[in-house]
Amino acid sequence: MITSKTNPHIKQVKQLASSAKARRESGLFVVEGDRIVSEVPVESIRYLYVSESHEKEFDLSGFPRYEVVGDEAFKAMSDTVNPQGVLAVLKQPSYKADDLIRSKSNGLYLILDDIRDPGNLGTMIRTAEAAGVNAVIMSPGCADIFNPKVIRSTMGSIFRVPFAQAELVPVIEKLKNRNVTVYGAALDGADNFKDVDYKGATAFVIGNEANGISPEVLRSVSKKIRIPMAGKVESLNAAISAAVLLFAR
Amino acid sequence: MITSKTNPHIKQVKQLASSAKARRESGLFVVEGDRIVSEVPVESIRYLYVSESHEKEFDLSGFPRYEVVGDEAFKAMSDTVNPQGVLAVLKQPSYKADDLIRSKSNGLYLILDDIRDPGNLGTMIRTAEAAGVNAVIMSPGCADIFNPKVIRSTMGSIFRVPFAQAELVPVIEKLKNRNVTVYGAALDGADNFKDVDYKGATAFVIGNEANGISPEVLRSVSKKIRIPMAGKVESLNAAISAAVLLFAR
Repeated sequence: MITSKTNPHIKQVKQLASSAKARRESGLFVVEGDRIVSEVPVESIRYLYVSESHEKEFDLSGFPRYEVVGDEAFKAMSDTVNPQGVLAVLKQPSYKADDLIRSKSNGLYLILDDIRDPGNLGTMIRTAEAAGVNAVIMSPGCADIFNPKVIRSTMGSIFRVPFAQAELVPVIEKLKNRNVTVYGAALDGADNFKDVDYKGATAFVIGNEANGISPEVLRSVSKKIRIPMAGKVESLNAAISAAVLLFAR
Repeated sequence: MITSKTNPHIKQVKQLASSAKARRESGLFVVEGDRIVSEVPVESIRYLYVSESHEKEFDLSGFPRYEVVGDEAFKAMSDTVNPQGVLAVLKQPSYKADDLIRSKSNGLYLILDDIRDPGNLGTMIRTAEAAGVNAVIMSPGCADIFNPKVIRSTMGSIFRVPFAQAELVPVIEKLKNRNVTVYGAALDGADNFKDVDYKGATAFVIGNEANGISPEVLRSVSKKIRIPMAGKVESLNAAISAAVLLFAR
């Protein structure tokens, strides 16, 4: 049983939870909590930790091995204020953007340009799964998808929605060459999103929370569309815009 | 100039930012930051505070009076890590639910049942304004709308969308009597939201993040509708559901 707060396991978990660099260099990330750990693909687990007092409560039958951690040491390991008592270190899934955008005749893609807020990014992954998206492509400027806040907000969709990080303009060019219509959400879009006929393979591009889609990306889309807004609202939350478009299709 | 961190003004602002009870008892609340303060209805301002270093940067011409606060003292007053240097104490707007639900022939209402997350609640107010909602009615179990996190997430919509807190069943009964069709978002809703003809006055009820709409409220709606979900998603984020329905109408 791990009881010392200076145990190297604890140090590694804390680093993986707090540092994007540590995640990138190791190819690992951390998930925490009963529900999400029970949804983890078992083959991706490098380490599974359960607190002393949670060992009897959590169903460990599906997992080949795990480490028990003393309650105090588990608190030191955890990223949450009230840890549930189970936490896993996982290998990062890795997809290639090129493999993900091989168009299907009725494919649906979500393309994210510099989404910075981890909660927004996670919510968009969750919403994308619900809307039946085939893949999510993120620009290099997006928040780190393996950030614990992103993971939590995905509510498990992180394990089910294929995603990749890539430069967006080449991705959009490839999608268009494969007969995917790429719609960019823009405040000055010529067409109301409700008036568009979303037949065939479709991609939606959602831009940064403050600045929208970057000019070079916006130039590459097939069509700019807008979500008309009443009142004096200047813009919608980025995850809200994504949801409105994905479910309008 | 206020320079002491123990000045009663500072104490009051901190209390109003952190305590729902202090807000309820005083009928006041706090907003912070250049953008939102510049959108505040001037007549609702009780106190306006600007930091010493921000006095020249912020346009104070529209405000009859303000207090200058030393930079260190302003930091103590602020709810944010990097305060912009302007903050206002405001009188809470107060609407009566009964006045807000006097049906218009094409009226749109958003009804929230125990939305607990302040960010979700604020985002829903912002989205509601953009969708042209006439009023938002919140159950007594919703997060306090004057919580600073709610205020921030509304992006100024708090000043433009009429809202009230009330028991939902009587509100829904009144809406139905006034020919408003009240749709409840439920995972087991019989009708797909896309197949509904939203003619005439419409209300959408959105339930709690974990438990959905409470049984007694759900029994009172005109119709239960569902947002069909692909994949293994169990539910959508509450603010996402609200947006999908409001913009589908």
